[in-house]
Amino acid sequence: MKEEARISPQQAVAKMLAHDRFSEWMGLEIDKVELGYCKLHFTVKEDMLNGFSIIHGGALFAASDSAFAFACNTYGYLTVALEVSISFTRSATAGELITVEAKEIHMGNKTGIYEIRANNEKGELLSLFKGTAYRTSKLIEPLSDG
Amino acid sequence: MKEEARISPQQAVAKMLAHDRFSEWMGLEIDKVELGYCKLHFTVKEDMLNGFSIIHGGALFAASDSAFAFACNTYGYLTVALEVSISFTRSATAGELITVEAKEIHMGNKTGIYEIRANNEKGELLSLFKGTAYRTSKLIEPLSDG
Amino acid sequence: MKEEARISPQQAVAKMLAHDRFSEWMGLEIDKVELGYCKLHFTVKEDMLNGFSIIHGGALFAASDSAFAFACNTYGYLTVALEVSISFTRSATAGELITVEAKEIHMGNKTGIYEIRANNEKGELLSLFKGTAYRTSKLIEPLSDG
Amino acid sequence: MKEEARISPQQAVAKMLAHDRFSEWMGLEIDKVELGYCKLHFTVKEDMLNGFSIIHGGALFAASDSAFAFACNTYGYLTVALEVSISFTRSATAGELITVEAKEIHMGNKTGIYEIRANNEKGELLSLFKGTAYRTSKLIEPLSDG
Repeated sequence: MKEEARISPQQAVAKMLAHDRFSEWMGLEIDKVELGYCKLHFTVKEDMLNGFSIIHGGALFAASDSAFAFACNTYGYLTVALEVSISFTRSATAGELITVEAKEIHMGNKTGIYEIRANNEKGELLSLFKGTAYRTSKLIEPLSDG
Repeated sequence: MKEEARISPQQAVAKMLAHDRFSEWMGLEIDKVELGYCKLHFTVKEDMLNGFSIIHGGALFAASDSAFAFACNTYGYLTVALEVSISFTRSATAGELITVEAKEIHMGNKTGIYEIRANNEKGELLSLFKGTAYRTSKLIEPLSDG
Repeated sequence: MKEEARISPQQAVAKMLAHDRFSEWMGLEIDKVELGYCKLHFTVKEDMLNGFSIIHGGALFAASDSAFAFACNTYGYLTVALEVSISFTRSATAGELITVEAKEIHMGNKTGIYEIRANNEKGELLSLFKGTAYRTSKLIEPLSDG
Repeated sequence: MKEEARISPQQAVAKMLAHDRFSEWMGLEIDKVELGYCKLHFTVKEDMLNGFSIIHGGALFAASDSAFAFACNTYGYLTVALEVSISFTRSATAGELITVEAKEIHMGNKTGIYEIRANNEKGELLSLFKGTAYRTSKLIEPLSDG
């Protein structure tokens, strides 16, 4: 029988963030976490730019992917990305504030679909990310002193 | 009438790399560049790990996206990613050497399809990335002292 | 200079439908057409089922793809699908009424992003389709007697 | 404990085809079936054309999706498509013979990645389809008189 998760959405994300070196490097700041939901923001820094002096697609993807991972792990079970599709609609450059919001579209028994939007300060869409997640039966343990 | 590109595939990539702060941070090393093709490698570092101590999907995506951008800009025209789909099949951790190869599947008049595979040292597939590129008519200028 | 479209969204879709044998076979009925938008419905028939007696993914895709094509051709310029990503969340069987709604997420100069949702009669999501369209400069001519 | 599949790849596909009304309507003819592999062909018919008199994206998708389903069900367990991404590179019209080949890129414990290519008679690529499959533990039973 499936063990029940014994961690809140906020604790699950705190646990993930505690060791997430890449999100730390990105400077991701969490705004809100709920079951199946995460909103965060970050500021584009020079080290995130590509050869055309605009944000590297990988940096935009990474922020979206982190929001996706946080949102789909809020249930307290280790959940991994199987497949992601991202469309780029607008670019951004150093100094801009980017907001990233991950919403659950569907969550079945084992797999779920999430949609993640990155917007600039004017509320213009930079990228639309659709992710398919696979939920394992492995529990996420709270931080030992958390 | 369309201006002809006046830059070699190698010069186009050199120009892009010269200012690509994110690829520099990733430590991407180019192995081979040809028309519509790019092969590169990098070593997973601690700062690329996520909260589960495996490589962040964003880092794997970023390396693939760079290889994609280099490959599709070899024609000498500024070319941008419209849409990308990536499937994750296996993870990697700090210290592992990852090889990324971008191949052109199709190149039409304006849009092209590329496939990018990331493999570990055993030749096992970590991710499969399919990218749709849009080629503008803007020429990539060589490095002034290049 | 770009010629201006001389056709309404409704005329553009009427022109497309007039010769669309596959949409006719599917029994697609248009509910609403606006600039960048289309809503339609159809009933699952026996010939759309796969070997597991549920609707074939291709039929669900086809209805979504038609809604996508209608929505992005409402501007009066011939517009084609470059890339599509579809996630399946629930199945349906013969006799069920499926509603398909295509919305524009972004429309740039040449390329656009659309999202298409297929729902059953209970409003449950069957599939989420994200499409990238490329708009050519070719005008769609009205039906000669239309 | 997981029950072992008691059906050959060919028997699994025969079972699926026996009731697959949509593939029958499409006129799909199987050329070859192996574990994780399927090759088939069909001829574009008038009923598969869209309003621009070229093959409807949904028909090309459906043939690719059938090849995908056949390939990933060869293991004898009911396996479903979670997510698919398809890129369209060239069109075809009525009377053309299309060959569709599905290859396994990766098969993990529960999920797999397949790539499906549709080519015309000249061997030119019409579409590239990447599919993510989820394998259930439900066995596919052979045809009762199979």
